[in-house]
Amino acid sequence: MRKWYNVSGEQGDIVLSSRIRLARNLKEYPFPNRLNRQQMLEVNTKIREVTEKSGQKFMYLEMEQLPKEHAISLAERHLISPDFAENTEGRVLLITEDEEIALMLCEEDHIRLQVMGSGLCLEEAYKKADKLDNYLNSNLNYAFDSRLGYLTQCPTNLGTGMRASVMLHLPALSSCGQLSRLANTISKLGLTIRGVFGEGSNSMGDIYQLSNQVSLGISEEVAIKNLTSITLQIIAQERAAAGEMIKNPEVQDKIFRAYGVLKNARLLSTDEFMSLMSIVRLGAVNNILDINIEKISELIVNMQAATLSVMKGESLPPEKRDMFRAEIVRETI
Amino acid sequence: MRKWYNVSGEQGDIVLSSRIRLARNLKEYPFPNRLNRQQMLEVNTKIREVTEKSGQKFMYLEMEQLPKEHAISLAERHLISPDFAENTEGRVLLITEDEEIALMLCEEDHIRLQVMGSGLCLEEAYKKADKLDNYLNSNLNYAFDSRLGYLTQCPTNLGTGMRASVMLHLPALSSCGQLSRLANTISKLGLTIRGVFGEGSNSMGDIYQLSNQVSLGISEEVAIKNLTSITLQIIAQERAAAGEMIKNPEVQDKIFRAYGVLKNARLLSTDEFMSLMSIVRLGAVNNILDINIEKISELIVNMQAATLSVMKGESLPPEKRDMFRAEIVRETI
Repeated sequence: MRKWYNVSGEQGDIVLSSRIRLARNLKEYPFPNRLNRQQMLEVNTKIREVTEKSGQKFMYLEMEQLPKEHAISLAERHLISPDFAENTEGRVLLITEDEEIALMLCEEDHIRLQVMGSGLCLEEAYKKADKLDNYLNSNLNYAFDSRLGYLTQCPTNLGTGMRASVMLHLPALSSCGQLSRLANTISKLGLTIRGVFGEGSNSMGDIYQLSNQVSLGISEEVAIKNLTSITLQIIAQERAAAGEMIKNPEVQDKIFRAYGVLKNARLLSTDEFMSLMSIVRLGAVNNILDINIEKISELIVNMQAATLSVMKGESLPPEKRDMFRAEIVRETI
Repeated sequence: MRKWYNVSGEQGDIVLSSRIRLARNLKEYPFPNRLNRQQMLEVNTKIREVTEKSGQKFMYLEMEQLPKEHAISLAERHLISPDFAENTEGRVLLITEDEEIALMLCEEDHIRLQVMGSGLCLEEAYKKADKLDNYLNSNLNYAFDSRLGYLTQCPTNLGTGMRASVMLHLPALSSCGQLSRLANTISKLGLTIRGVFGEGSNSMGDIYQLSNQVSLGISEEVAIKNLTSITLQIIAQERAAAGEMIKNPEVQDKIFRAYGVLKNARLLSTDEFMSLMSIVRLGAVNNILDINIEKISELIVNMQAATLSVMKGESLPPEKRDMFRAEIVRETI
């Protein structure tokens, strides 16, 4: 089955993916952390019955039944939250086979509806989310207040209940230290940028998530327009910085070496893979290396620890995992 | 012109080359450091005239006329001594086109006759040296004493005036730390082992020279037999250590990575080239990598700084040199 990330997206040199997430709750039930097991089942069943008639085909995954590594793999690929993979009691995931649309049931809210897409496609993703949301709205009783908008467990989600985000690969801005200054400007605009993999502001693989912070007092359309506009500005900055950077013979040398190691290594840790891959992707995007960018993006999605074990069909100890990772990377690039 | 090092030699997995060097002086002249310019010219001319009738074709190179980088390149390839490249006054090099036989004139002694060969071939090299030496002996007046043998400027060369040596690639013994213990044993047997490239006991590229120390009271044949026998023992030890070493997946990983970097880098310093090449050679010798070993040996001979400038036909500054080195390495392996 072709996944959403196998497709090349707009501004795909820098934007790996776009995501729209809507938080919704049912009027007749307390928020999930106040539900007992029986009530959770009721909520899940109710939503499942409605989605089954939506015209869209969803897999119904009870998180408690799912092997741990499968759950973590879903979180690694950003299809569910880490908390949803960790605390599985009474929780259900509805997900399309191409992994484009997912509904976490009984996460922080009753419904966390998520649409993912390749490249910069926030409007398109929002349309899809909105369409499904409208259908659910007409068949379920959403908790909605005319002043506060959609009611959510956490007040930061009140209003539209929407988080829009893009995942960006910013090796040049990251290496020249412009990113922290950028993060300051961005926060003043009601947006936030943070590393996707690893801890702290220095992201593994130079991959960052830019998202809106404000959902109250601003329409979905305006929020998406803002986010798209800032994204385009960051893209322009990254391209300019990358264009300068790759003129340096030492950077070119680094790119080719990173390729040489990825193409030949027999053991690759996640950390090393991510940092080499970031350099190789920079080279591929700037036509220094002749490698398909979608292949690289797919590797970034799939080379995390638990996902590798799922692919191999067995739980892999670290060394075997590093060996298997190196094998797949060699064959792919 | 095919050089001696383009040919695969015996025990070529470990022995890069063998060398025989004879020190000889003419009876009717003081040792070179006591000669004036006019006398040096006389000595050189006398020897040249004799060698011209030897049946072997030699190039006659006046070291003073030779561009500095050509001279250093000859020293890098061990065809002349570093001192002969540095202090050129009145000195002459006679050398065959395949670089197998060279005569330094007016170095420490009037004649330093050297024969090089690929792999372990001390006897063969000695035969060639002996043949030319006999011819010179019958046409020149050698300084010879029936008790002390050939008279040489430095008393350590008295007797046969012969130094026999082999150049060995010992990555496994070097990395497992057995080499220093080996060096102790070897010195008790009247031999010495030292790094060929770089300073100290840790040789760049794990390349070591094993040579006889004693030339007095021992015939050439016995000295060569001893050296060959010890060399064969070291070869056996290196092969055993390498056989163990390459079973380790981390070592295999290192070998493939080193290959990946050499095959892709755009900038390569001498130090890095030598250490990566050593690992790659270990892999090639043990059938982990499919690379021609003679090609690697040729690179090791030719990738030093001055030799690169000579190859390029212009004096290269360090960065351009590293770029040119990387280019040749990529194309060769």
